[in-house]
Amino acid sequence: MVLPGNCSTSAALCMQFLTQLAAVAIDQAYPAVPNDYHLPNKKLFVSYRSVPPPAPSPSSAAVPIRFNSYSSVGSNIRGLNSQTLHPGSMEPPLTPGNYRLYSMRFCPYAQRVLIYLAKKNIPVEVVNVNPDRSPNWYLAKSPIGRVPALEINGKVVWESNVIVEYLDELFPTTTVLPRDAFEKAHQKILVERLSPIMNALFEFYSSMSNQQAQRQNDMNVHSALRNAENLLRDSFYGGRQPGYADYLIWPFLERLQLLTMTQNSQFRYFPGLHYPKIGAYIARMQNQPEIKFSSRPLTHHKAYLDSFSMGMPNYDFGIYGKS
Amino acid sequence: MVLPGNCSTSAALCMQFLTQLAAVAIDQAYPAVPNDYHLPNKKLFVSYRSVPPPAPSPSSAAVPIRFNSYSSVGSNIRGLNSQTLHPGSMEPPLTPGNYRLYSMRFCPYAQRVLIYLAKKNIPVEVVNVNPDRSPNWYLAKSPIGRVPALEINGKVVWESNVIVEYLDELFPTTTVLPRDAFEKAHQKILVERLSPIMNALFEFYSSMSNQQAQRQNDMNVHSALRNAENLLRDSFYGGRQPGYADYLIWPFLERLQLLTMTQNSQFRYFPGLHYPKIGAYIARMQNQPEIKFSSRPLTHHKAYLDSFSMGMPNYDFGIYGKS
Repeated sequence: MVLPGNCSTSAALCMQFLTQLAAVAIDQAYPAVPNDYHLPNKKLFVSYRSVPPPAPSPSSAAVPIRFNSYSSVGSNIRGLNSQTLHPGSMEPPLTPGNYRLYSMRFCPYAQRVLIYLAKKNIPVEVVNVNPDRSPNWYLAKSPIGRVPALEINGKVVWESNVIVEYLDELFPTTTVLPRDAFEKAHQKILVERLSPIMNALFEFYSSMSNQQAQRQNDMNVHSALRNAENLLRDSFYGGRQPGYADYLIWPFLERLQLLTMTQNSQFRYFPGLHYPKIGAYIARMQNQPEIKFSSRPLTHHKAYLDSFSMGMPNYDFGIYGKS
Repeated sequence: MVLPGNCSTSAALCMQFLTQLAAVAIDQAYPAVPNDYHLPNKKLFVSYRSVPPPAPSPSSAAVPIRFNSYSSVGSNIRGLNSQTLHPGSMEPPLTPGNYRLYSMRFCPYAQRVLIYLAKKNIPVEVVNVNPDRSPNWYLAKSPIGRVPALEINGKVVWESNVIVEYLDELFPTTTVLPRDAFEKAHQKILVERLSPIMNALFEFYSSMSNQQAQRQNDMNVHSALRNAENLLRDSFYGGRQPGYADYLIWPFLERLQLLTMTQNSQFRYFPGLHYPKIGAYIARMQNQPEIKFSSRPLTHHKAYLDSFSMGMPNYDFGIYGKS
């Protein structure tokens, strides 16, 4: 059985799939309250439209191309905080030979790809789309409007794990996955073995407002952390340096820290003193340039999650300076 | 989020994960009834112990090795119907340099790997283990006793999709996945797009005894078949020949034919006249030697499923001649 490694329609956090399987009632019965995060007159972050695409490089017609002309991690990525496109939005023109990532700013699966793109220093333009109600032209690229999706010269690849492996094949000199077949398989297996971290995040999202369910979820988080603590045998799951498993799991660990801001959870610190290796691991990960670049403040995650819980997901939270 | 591509403990068909997510009560409240399928005195199929391991080839110390000395598809695979090992069973000695697949005879994920091994003609010994209550020595190889798992020289790889990609990397001359990065990604995406077939099987297994749930499931199967019909653009999902997506989806299509033997389902024919492309596709697949080799009669699947539903899974059904 396969669950998608992506964010998808109808709930923006793969919730539609959890809902289908588990009858999680995430988007029901929340009172509609005013959403005041959206203040379009205070632009602070760079928005998509404010950065015109660069003139195409003469060599960019060939694919793949590896650029090394950027000095700081993430400077190869434009439009990270571009305004979200909704039904009715025009499709921004894509220069042939350029990579484009369709994303949603708070999607953990899209963050996996962003970390990879930053690490590998691949020039890319990010276009943020509403994964719940996407523009019609986007549905032609990604069935049911899922993000993330990577486009190049009319070819579209989706599923976060498929995209990052595709990037490693296109740009083998900066491969994140090990070249050795067994080590490569081992990294993929590690992601699977760390999947309780991912499951715990989805359970947390679905049980946030229910005290009893959140107690149970706290126990699941403890179990996932114990498991993660046992599996960490070096500085990173990839060894001395962060690897595929680290990058694929990180977005979920980043968001699990929201537990400390949730009344119904007993986590006041994350991961807490019981998990010294994971505590040190999180600090090490947060020091990696590609993680720093891709991460968002916990207050932003919290604001997005609150808006999502109220049935009015604010995909543009933070773009305009309110945080 | 990741769901495992494997069979795992506590329910033998990934049910434990569905249960966890969806509170599917698959193994509850079934009356314990006598299981008369197990007739140990009538051996018909080759059992594990009846085939001594061959003397190690001088060249088999090196890994990987590609053998081409087998004439018919599947003759490279020994022990397909070996007796299931339970807690207390001894670990069969594994000759260095030999491949071993830990399997369960009715596991669709293990079948994926068997198809691949047959297609690629890789000599392998199959050891069947009880995935619900596995021998202790097996737990050291595969966390929580999941099957399938592939062992070679003390290295163990699990997760069916990870195993088959690993096999393609070890034996590139017989690669099933396309060599082109985009085509390869496209095959993986196709598996994801065909996942409603897989979901429909799990829902069928969990709703079999409930008339109303089975009606709903019939609708899900129709939806999955419509989707599969639309996605089939050539003889196979892999093109003119069966490919990665075909091999990974087939075990689920094979088992969905059980709907025709289920009172609560309205499928009297599978897939039925509404899906002419899928109907012809199933016939084409059934003619592939690697599919013929790996498939089991529908009556065997039915007997296993019935035993599983009664909480007494008979992993050895058919070994001893009763069918």
